Amino acid sequence: MKDKDLDGMTFEDIARGIESMDIRGAAFIARAAALAIAKHVENFQGEGIDQFEDWVDKGKERLISTRPTAVSLENALRYVLKPGDDVESWKTSIEMRADEFIKRSHEAGKKIAEYGGKRIKDGDTVLTHCNSSLALGAVEYAFDQGKDVKVIATESRPKKQGYITVRYLAEKDIPVTLIVDSAVRYMIREVDQVYTGADTIASNGAVINKIGTSQIALCANEARVPFTVCAETYKFSQGTAFGELVTIEERDPSEIVDPADVRGVRIRNPVFDATPADYVDSIITEEGVIPPSSAYRILKEMFDY
Amino acid sequence: MKDKDLDGMTFEDIARGIESMDIRGAAFIARAAALAIAKHVENFQGEGIDQFEDWVDKGKERLISTRPTAVSLENALRYVLKPGDDVESWKTSIEMRADEFIKRSHEAGKKIAEYGGKRIKDGDTVLTHCNSSLALGAVEYAFDQGKDVKVIATESRPKKQGYITVRYLAEKDIPVTLIVDSAVRYMIREVDQVYTGADTIASNGAVINKIGTSQIALCANEARVPFTVCAETYKFSQGTAFGELVTIEERDPSEIVDPADVRGVRIRNPVFDATPADYVDSIITEEGVIPPSSAYRILKEMFDY
Amino acid sequence: MKDKDLDGMTFEDIARGIESMDIRGAAFIARAAALAIAKHVENFQGEGIDQFEDWVDKGKERLISTRPTAVSLENALRYVLKPGDDVESWKTSIEMRADEFIKRSHEAGKKIAEYGGKRIKDGDTVLTHCNSSLALGAVEYAFDQGKDVKVIATESRPKKQGYITVRYLAEKDIPVTLIVDSAVRYMIREVDQVYTGADTIASNGAVINKIGTSQIALCANEARVPFTVCAETYKFSQGTAFGELVTIEERDPSEIVDPADVRGVRIRNPVFDATPADYVDSIITEEGVIPPSSAYRILKEMFDY
Amino acid sequence: MKDKDLDGMTFEDIARGIESMDIRGAAFIARAAALAIAKHVENFQGEGIDQFEDWVDKGKERLISTRPTAVSLENALRYVLKPGDDVESWKTSIEMRADEFIKRSHEAGKKIAEYGGKRIKDGDTVLTHCNSSLALGAVEYAFDQGKDVKVIATESRPKKQGYITVRYLAEKDIPVTLIVDSAVRYMIREVDQVYTGADTIASNGAVINKIGTSQIALCANEARVPFTVCAETYKFSQGTAFGELVTIEERDPSEIVDPADVRGVRIRNPVFDATPADYVDSIITEEGVIPPSSAYRILKEMFDY
Amino acid sequence: MKDKDLDGMTFEDIARGIESMDIRGAAFIARAAALAIAKHVENFQGEGIDQFEDWVDKGKERLISTRPTAVSLENALRYVLKPGDDVESWKTSIEMRADEFIKRSHEAGKKIAEYGGKRIKDGDTVLTHCNSSLALGAVEYAFDQGKDVKVIATESRPKKQGYITVRYLAEKDIPVTLIVDSAVRYMIREVDQVYTGADTIASNGAVINKIGTSQIALCANEARVPFTVCAETYKFSQGTAFGELVTIEERDPSEIVDPADVRGVRIRNPVFDATPADYVDSIITEEGVIPPSSAYRILKEMFDY
Amino acid sequence: MKDKDLDGMTFEDIARGIESMDIRGAAFIARAAALAIAKHVENFQGEGIDQFEDWVDKGKERLISTRPTAVSLENALRYVLKPGDDVESWKTSIEMRADEFIKRSHEAGKKIAEYGGKRIKDGDTVLTHCNSSLALGAVEYAFDQGKDVKVIATESRPKKQGYITVRYLAEKDIPVTLIVDSAVRYMIREVDQVYTGADTIASNGAVINKIGTSQIALCANEARVPFTVCAETYKFSQGTAFGELVTIEERDPSEIVDPADVRGVRIRNPVFDATPADYVDSIITEEGVIPPSSAYRILKEMFDY
Repeated sequence: MKDKDLDGMTFEDIARGIESMDIRGAAFIARAAALAIAKHVENFQGEGIDQFEDWVDKGKERLISTRPTAVSLENALRYVLKPGDDVESWKTSIEMRADEFIKRSHEAGKKIAEYGGKRIKDGDTVLTHCNSSLALGAVEYAFDQGKDVKVIATESRPKKQGYITVRYLAEKDIPVTLIVDSAVRYMIREVDQVYTGADTIASNGAVINKIGTSQIALCANEARVPFTVCAETYKFSQGTAFGELVTIEERDPSEIVDPADVRGVRIRNPVFDATPADYVDSIITEEGVIPPSSAYRILKEMFDY
Repeated sequence: MKDKDLDGMTFEDIARGIESMDIRGAAFIARAAALAIAKHVENFQGEGIDQFEDWVDKGKERLISTRPTAVSLENALRYVLKPGDDVESWKTSIEMRADEFIKRSHEAGKKIAEYGGKRIKDGDTVLTHCNSSLALGAVEYAFDQGKDVKVIATESRPKKQGYITVRYLAEKDIPVTLIVDSAVRYMIREVDQVYTGADTIASNGAVINKIGTSQIALCANEARVPFTVCAETYKFSQGTAFGELVTIEERDPSEIVDPADVRGVRIRNPVFDATPADYVDSIITEEGVIPPSSAYRILKEMFDY
Repeated sequence: MKDKDLDGMTFEDIARGIESMDIRGAAFIARAAALAIAKHVENFQGEGIDQFEDWVDKGKERLISTRPTAVSLENALRYVLKPGDDVESWKTSIEMRADEFIKRSHEAGKKIAEYGGKRIKDGDTVLTHCNSSLALGAVEYAFDQGKDVKVIATESRPKKQGYITVRYLAEKDIPVTLIVDSAVRYMIREVDQVYTGADTIASNGAVINKIGTSQIALCANEARVPFTVCAETYKFSQGTAFGELVTIEERDPSEIVDPADVRGVRIRNPVFDATPADYVDSIITEEGVIPPSSAYRILKEMFDY
Repeated sequence: MKDKDLDGMTFEDIARGIESMDIRGAAFIARAAALAIAKHVENFQGEGIDQFEDWVDKGKERLISTRPTAVSLENALRYVLKPGDDVESWKTSIEMRADEFIKRSHEAGKKIAEYGGKRIKDGDTVLTHCNSSLALGAVEYAFDQGKDVKVIATESRPKKQGYITVRYLAEKDIPVTLIVDSAVRYMIREVDQVYTGADTIASNGAVINKIGTSQIALCANEARVPFTVCAETYKFSQGTAFGELVTIEERDPSEIVDPADVRGVRIRNPVFDATPADYVDSIITEEGVIPPSSAYRILKEMFDY
Repeated sequence: MKDKDLDGMTFEDIARGIESMDIRGAAFIARAAALAIAKHVENFQGEGIDQFEDWVDKGKERLISTRPTAVSLENALRYVLKPGDDVESWKTSIEMRADEFIKRSHEAGKKIAEYGGKRIKDGDTVLTHCNSSLALGAVEYAFDQGKDVKVIATESRPKKQGYITVRYLAEKDIPVTLIVDSAVRYMIREVDQVYTGADTIASNGAVINKIGTSQIALCANEARVPFTVCAETYKFSQGTAFGELVTIEERDPSEIVDPADVRGVRIRNPVFDATPADYVDSIITEEGVIPPSSAYRILKEMFDY
Repeated sequence: MKDKDLDGMTFEDIARGIESMDIRGAAFIARAAALAIAKHVENFQGEGIDQFEDWVDKGKERLISTRPTAVSLENALRYVLKPGDDVESWKTSIEMRADEFIKRSHEAGKKIAEYGGKRIKDGDTVLTHCNSSLALGAVEYAFDQGKDVKVIATESRPKKQGYITVRYLAEKDIPVTLIVDSAVRYMIREVDQVYTGADTIASNGAVINKIGTSQIALCANEARVPFTVCAETYKFSQGTAFGELVTIEERDPSEIVDPADVRGVRIRNPVFDATPADYVDSIITEEGVIPPSSAYRILKEMFDY
């Protein structure tokens, strides 16, 4: 699903789309949530500021319930929902800020593609994991600049988003090789750089991303291959600065295998893991290229505390 | 397939079984090859020592062609095929040595299970990869001694031998958890020990095993979890002592995905990788528990050079 | 000794209390010094701003002389002693700022307990060293939230402050195990997190704390156990930003053993050591959870240079 | 060549001096460029703001062409060339800002010597590489404070700037030992600290400096010897914050050997390398001692973006 | 207690001495057990080979029960108790072999002192832990050769055997400094070598020694200081070659503190820990200087299997 | 100088050739010493076994004095000088054994080239240091097998033996790139393998070789590039097995620079350094490819103790 598909959808359509993971990817989820909350306030039929506030809260809660651990969704709503004084001006503010958020999200994506693309050298082989539009954007930017760039992509079990990645690149004529997740260490000496996306960046610089990311980072670190994360600043988690832990979602075992096929076997399906700051060379944000330990500063600036 | 299934098979049946990977696992392949060559010499219909030698060589070549990189197969044949002086005594010698090899292989498996099982402590969680009967034998030994032992098993893409592992353990009522290959680093702090098998041990102590083994070893090493390899001495490669490199087999891409589904995408399917000796705490052989750097000594003793 | 015991004490009582280590712990020392300097200016009997300034300086020097390497003491005085224009307003300012400092110190302690406590997961075993009220506060916060939390505490030779720690926790019914300082590496695989306090944080993120802290951090790092430091921002050393080195105090040998018992033996008694930023995952301050490399930023903000 | 030698030189003299490396060292180049551009605008003989702007651009381009990868040169010009409204005031501004830049550069050098010198302890042996006036300034500061300080200096092939270093120190009666570049790891256990300069600091904290620096940093890290970099803030590269890669200049092979002497042999002469932030304990700037990961913050402040 | 004190003791005196740790140190225990079993067979008053065998077994069991985890004791008895054909010749054999074992143990100590002492360089500072007569023997050898050698010794809580060490060295006029166990990492950059003893060497090269040894080895490894273990070959554990785990004895909590003083506190008192082979540079045996991974070979030769 | 140049030389010519380093390289020195001692005994003009023994000793001492730290020279003499019963038979024995030693040395070189050459893969770039005929032999073997192999060679200051290396390879049309010693870490990611020679192998697996080798090994280890050492077994040092330390020769400062050019500067010129076993993947000997920790075993076999 893409941004333009959201236009015809209702608030509840979008909420369900996030829940079912038809709407996937931290940035897309954030934009979808911003749009959804704007659609939601359009539908307000009550009266007075108090009823409006309840309505807004109801919408917000519904959206947060779709992916309670998604920092980008929460940050998008925080951005959009600045409190207002009366119904009309608040409604307008929400609609305008939703538009603005979506626009800034797209622009952030372009800047990150540019900054990230510049850092890919002619002849580089880039390994990527899962399906990060930011990481792919950087590769595409480099490719469009005429650089000879090759990609190695992992399957990314259990949902195999790696197939989306390899098809996208093949369509763009960017040379791409598919491997199983287990083959990263075997291939790493042919790799010049690793580029991944992120779901959440913690205040101590840890990167929460698709399961498997941290062991790829470990392999890269062992072989002195730079590991770069692409992430808009709205993926930085304020809560972690005040002691909250990022909850690692464990999703349904049936994403891996039908439990009936392996009776008596416990199945665990954690969908993210945390890569320590030590294994991350740079985070590319729309604000520039930063070391992971500057995460705290990004948070300070964003939330102005 | 199991050892007893081999009895009714012809030489060529067995050769094809190894080729198609119906006969899998370095130890089982070795025993199958020993049996096959014995069956082969039974079928000899020529005359004289020269014709016999040709016949033996033909059989040997056919078997080696089924898995040209399998050290255990080569070592099994080396064990069985001591040269003889006349057709009859040589034939007898081959049949006896084939029997002996198979018997010693089974005994080696039992000893390794015992030595390995003793090293699992009450309450330990053991992570394993792919489907190693030796590693599972050690777990089972510990379990049968009344120890509380839990297993975490990886899927082991692309062939997903992990499912054989979890079903086997569930049947034995040994608590087992299945994870995707990418989740090893996420789970490793719950793990007390890693046990795997091996396809080949090189003279410098490197362990060649199922793709993904080396990144599990890396994760274990990072978290100070001991990494133990179970391997009969006939998996030690003499050739590596004289400069030969272990060839890492790359198998058909279609084991991963139908290439038609990802047109324009290169697919690489290496099936083994090499874990450096530094990440291996112990190798459990039927001769005892050794540090990986004693591989050279094992070779010296086996081949008496 | 506790905060309330200071009330009845004179300026000189407090100074001596710090000197003799009856008043111990970087935070307590800081509050005691703030209170003492307020008491000191109350006793001023001279006339005019010049005499007052001399009087203030005399007090300041006396306090600094009690523990010349204590950054928190120096920072407390820096906070309290903003220059004034006339005796009365300056006196008032000093008294008000001393109150304020003490209040903020207590609040900082509570915030750090909260942020730190949230980061302890249900079921976690936390190792701690020496006797840090901040680290214990975090454990207590987690325990009070109903989490199952266990503590392992070191003796902390030579002064054995670990005994204060274990008694405190036992009284609160928090399960606690005592070990000798040498047993940290042996126990570390049972540990989920390490929490310690700090005496001083340098501008490059190094943490100066009770002797032994750095080798615990090393053990934690080796076993991938997160190492967290709890420290109020007034423990960050401005001087280190301008090249000053943190002096590691070596105290009297008799704290270890009566020198007469080991004639001819040199005894060295360094009481702190420096843990490099690389081994520290997070520092929890009242301003939030930061990576150690943000120390410089904290200093910039505190001292506004 | 020294600062005072520049006075009698023309704009083009200076440009050529930089090109030929008679004017060497990132700080000296920066000051020379500031002075040169001031001399250049003095020579303006055209009319009107547009012609002046062209004239300024021409000068800027000429200077940048002399060492296109020198960040300090670019930052110096950026500092000096704030746009003006009319020819006269702009000219004056350029001259004043050039003066100011040169003065601040000298002051920065002094501050860094002081901050760096304080961090050298009595009895320390400091290893240095190439010929960094900042690093030597720190050593000299410590020596002048009466500390017993010894230096070990590398030759620094191919240009052997180490000889300038050892002669300078010997003249100051500071004990100094010369070694070949290969002997660093052999000597490192006699070393208490490593001090080097820098050509460029990237936004992720990587330090670009004379070829060989990164392997010295690696040796220091292996042996737990602190590695300190001395660098004025105008060596921090803004471009790297937006994805630009620092180009590592490869200079003429004949700096190493006359190619005619080794016919058929390719010669590569990279003159810088990049030391990752992980191996750098502190960077000493005129703004204070920072961890390398604060590079991004320095850039933010300098360029106010 | 010393070797000569054993002469006047009975079998049971010696057994109790081992139990109470009056007889301490793996080598001394081994010699005491050899002597005790010889005394025991002298006291035999039964008749016939069967009764004698029972008598021998009773003695053996009693001795093993005193320290069931002591490999040296077990190896001493294995050495002494070669089976015999008739009472007289067996008795004689036991007495002779006991003598021989004791003599060889003393000779081994002398050789290890020599080999170890040669490896200490003039000017070296050697850190040691606990009280190893072999490690001290090496230091003394070097000192007696006229080398300038200094020692740093840890207290070695809880039993503080470090005091025995420092008094011994002070008496010999060898310069020695005492530190608490926590100060090792702080002091390690002043240390040129670490020398310790061992209780047991496992077949994979791991060294079991006094609690704290492994974190000293870790500190040494971090700072590139060679870590040397002194151990006679009878401390190598055959059982570990067949899967047995070395049991780490946990002794009475009251060795640390009177439990009544810390009610409600659990106390754990592990007395050994395991240093992985990776952190050990050399093991000095009477057979020569070996890398830890040659442990397996030593076992093979000793037990001839 | 080459082997054939020795034929026309006298005993003393050869001794001086070794002294002056005209005869260089551990293997060449060994063969030269074997030949020299044979020439020496030819010149014997005394009478009787005692005079002969003195004569032999004189020759031996003279040769050892030329390079007192050269293990290969000592081992060559040990090989050649088996004691004899009467002058004639002893003389004959010396001559025969000298021949034999020289022949075995050449054969060892060929085997090492073969074993080492097989381990170089098609397309590999091999970095080498100094001028090791064994390492170059392996490269040449691979090249002659039709493999695409490239070499990167360091200058190897101070004697710049790297120039001999690059000229040799260029003559053979093997693509070779020359770099300064400082550029190893910069180039290492283009390198697939490092191959060096060795002067001495210690019993704990440490490799003593040309100054700079250990920092190349460190760079290789950091980047996961295998580090291989080529060495005949007569470079293994028996003395180290009994505690002797390998003396690192420091040669004349004037090899680096004319001391008069840097008055007041101390110059240190260590010509070897020690690479720890941990950084060495394999040692290729004529006996096969071994892990460095098997050094002890090689010694045991060679000297049969």
